[in-house]
Formats: sequence, C-alpha cells, structure tokens
Amino acid sequence: MMLFFFLAIVLAAKTAQADFDGPVIVNQIYLLRPQYGSGGRNGVTCLSWRFGVETNNIIDWETVPEECALYVGNYMLGQQYRQDSKAVVKEAYRYAKSLILADDGKDVWIFDIDETTLSNLPFYARYGFGVKPHDAELFNEWVLTESAPALPESLKLYKKLLALGIKIVFLTTRNEDKRHATEDNLLIAGYRTWEKIIFKQDSNYSITAVEYKSAERKKLEDAGYKIVGNIGDQWSDLLGTNTGCRTFKLPDPMYYVS
Amino acid sequence: MMLFFFLAIVLAAKTAQADFDGPVIVNQIYLLRPQYGSGGRNGVTCLSWRFGVETNNIIDWETVPEECALYVGNYMLGQQYRQDSKAVVKEAYRYAKSLILADDGKDVWIFDIDETTLSNLPFYARYGFGVKPHDAELFNEWVLTESAPALPESLKLYKKLLALGIKIVFLTTRNEDKRHATEDNLLIAGYRTWEKIIFKQDSNYSITAVEYKSAERKKLEDAGYKIVGNIGDQWSDLLGTNTGCRTFKLPDPMYYVS
Repeated sequence: MMLFFFLAIVLAAKTAQADFDGPVIVNQIYLLRPQYGSGGRNGVTCLSWRFGVETNNIIDWETVPEECALYVGNYMLGQQYRQDSKAVVKEAYRYAKSLILADDGKDVWIFDIDETTLSNLPFYARYGFGVKPHDAELFNEWVLTESAPALPESLKLYKKLLALGIKIVFLTTRNEDKRHATEDNLLIAGYRTWEKIIFKQDSNYSITAVEYKSAERKKLEDAGYKIVGNIGDQWSDLLGTNTGCRTFKLPDPMYYVS
Repeated sequence: MMLFFFLAIVLAAKTAQADFDGPVIVNQIYLLRPQYGSGGRNGVTCLSWRFGVETNNIIDWETVPEECALYVGNYMLGQQYRQDSKAVVKEAYRYAKSLILADDGKDVWIFDIDETTLSNLPFYARYGFGVKPHDAELFNEWVLTESAPALPESLKLYKKLLALGIKIVFLTTRNEDKRHATEDNLLIAGYRTWEKIIFKQDSNYSITAVEYKSAERKKLEDAGYKIVGNIGDQWSDLLGTNTGCRTFKLPDPMYYVS
C-alpha cells in the first residue's frame, strides 16, 4: 500500500511536470474514498457531493467544499477521472457508430473546449482543484501559455468521429480574443482539423453559457448543420435548446458554469 | 474491519426482514469500491458505469452488467445510496425554502413513486439488484403486497415540502389498476396526504414514460398548477416538456425506464 502511495505521488509529480512548464507540483494522493463532510454539510460525503454535482442536482456552486479538497484532487489525478471519462467516450462512440449519416458534409458533433477537449488540470492543480474561487486573470495567463494537454479519451473520440465522417465544431465560452492561443493549443494537443470554432463575442458578455450556446447551436442548425452529438463537462453545454440528437456529460467536479 | 463486515451483514439481514414479510435474505456486503469489469466492457469500472448511468450517458440498458452485480448490491444496501439520496434531498429542500410561493394552493411538487417515494429494494434484493431482466408479473405481485417501505430521505422531503405549503402530486408509470394497492402502500409507508396521484391508463400503454409524464405535467399546468419542483430516480421523470421549475435526480443503478 505504501508503495502504491509512493508511486502515485511520483507519477503525479511527473505528470504535472510534463503537462506544464512551471514549478513541479507534488500532490499527495489519497485512496478514493468517501470523506465525511463537517460544518454546514450535514454529513454529506464527498462522493455524494460529486454525485449531486454530476447529476445537476447541486447547481450554482462557487467553489469545491473545503472538506472535499483532497477528495477532488485525488479524483482528478487518480484513475477514476480517466475511467469515468472513458465510460462516457465509449458510450458516445457506440452511439456514433450506430448513426446512419446523411453524408452531405453537414453532420457535426459539438465539443466544448475546457475540461472536454483540453485539460486545465495543470492549472487547477496549482490552485487547489476548485477550492479557491476562479481567478479569471490567472486563468487567462494560463490559456496564453497554449500548453493545456488533450483529455486523452476525448482526443480518441475526436479521431474516431472524424474517421466516421462526422465534422467537429468546437463551441467554447472562451472569448474571441483567445482564438489564436486556443487554435495553437488545439493543434499542439493533437486536434488537427475542425469545421468551426465558435468563441464568445464581447456582445454576449452578459448572457449565460446556456443562452449563448443554445443560440450558437441554433445558428448552426439554421445554416443546415445537423448536430448528431454534443459533449461537454458542464450541464450548460448540454441543456437549453438545439442540444443535438444526443448529449454526453463528461465529469468535472472542479467548477460550475451556469 | 472484519467486525464491520459482520455488522453490515447482520444489519442487511435485519433490514431485509423488517421491510418485507418474506424469507430472510442474507446479503453479503462488500466495501464500496471500483470493481474492474471484464468481457466486453473494456475495463470500465462499476463506479464509472454508475456515473454513466446517473448522468444519462448510458441509456436504454436492460440489466445491470453481470460483473457489477455485487457492486450494485453493496451500493444499494450500504451507506452510499442513503448518503447520495440525502445529498439530493438536502439540495431540494434548500431550493424549496428559497421559493416565494404564490400561496394560492396551486404550487405543487411532483414525486415519482418507485425508487423515489417507495423503495422496492426488498423486491430487487431477491432478484439480483437489476442483474436479471425485469419480470413484470413478479413485480406486480410484489406491488400488491403493499409492503414497500418509504425511502427515508424522500419521506423527510415530502414532510418538509408540505410544511412549506407545497402540495404533492404523485406521477407514476404504475397502471391505474394498481391504484388501490399503491394508495394503501403510501399510507402505510407514512405518506398521508396528496393533491393527486396520476396513474398510467391503458390507453397510454404504448407511449414512453417521457411522453406520458410530459403530457400529464402539461395537463397539470393547463389546470392552473405551478410545478415548483420535480423529483424522480429516472431521467424519464425529469426530461421532456413541462418539467417544472427545477428537477432533482435520485440515484438508481438497478434499472432504466425510457
């Protein structure tokens, strides 16, 4: 058991180093297990909290509860996050293979970017895995480094969908001024082609992600595209209107976007 | 640790006995942990499978994967199911308390019945916790025993909502011919009042739960009710139209209703 802990710490440190050209972060890894909450949480375990978040029962939360910091860190760096992502992608591909495509170049699959296509884990690992409030300025600096790695399971899905003849549309709440850095980062991470990348415009500053993404998906459909699938880590990627023929929710217990 | 195992087995046996007046079922309890799948499941763990099911990524499944039988049984009989339900109910009540009600007697909260209001765990414990295909005849026999216990957290929510002045509507896919047994069972289990119980009619035999429940919710709204909340264990309770101001998904890894 001690050996496992040791290996996990070393691996995490190595991963953090490989992913992000900054100081090495040594993250202590705990076995994934329910940790009982305290204070105002009435004994709700961190696993139950995660269930609540992923099923959209717990909404509009600003930060990960303090007592779940280690739990979330362990989850994100451990096997379970990867396993959960794999289960989603496996189901998404099984669905995609079953589709009878129009073969008119208008079948598209929508990918969100952050925590769906690109992983900001090297960034969040430095700032407590969502325990600290989101700092837009620091996050923007990180985006400009263009060094976010691909989510490995999402990259596999992306490649398989392309092979099936489905085109990819990236739909992100990143602002238009991040287009250059984002496109560079996607290319570096292994996403080599796309039909469109849709960025949020300044004029959409005050609307929610659900409203913005619904409106953009409607524009796609009005332009003749058929949204055969839609994948994201936030329910705001998947709810609203024009959501696509089927949606897939990737795990993300680090932050909430409404 | 051995003591924990022993206690858990004894408790499970006692619970099964208390809930259901049939032969005592002794269920061996395992610690909740990921169990790796085999065969066609490509190493997706049972915890990831559960994540997939609860987030509506994995749909239209007929039975629990064979290799997850022990995992699901342990989950249902262990603390985690109760904890997960508690987290949902806590959030639902926090939301309900925040509402400014019209106080016109038209604010309603919709409860599904099976695995939301009443627990069929004593039944499913006898038939492998969802590993075996659903047997409608056996299930109907069980319903007629009127002995399903309340889900404890749901009963708490029910009472708290009533205290806030919200009326309760039960909306179930149970057939109209089960009305008598169901109403008896609800009373025995502690649900002592309701605005309406809506059962599925023979004329609705061939439509899906989503279609049926959407249509019934629309009728409620057309009759002047405001659906302030909606809770169920299946996504088919919560998707479709007229879903209510906010929906809450209770856990259920035992079966899928489309």
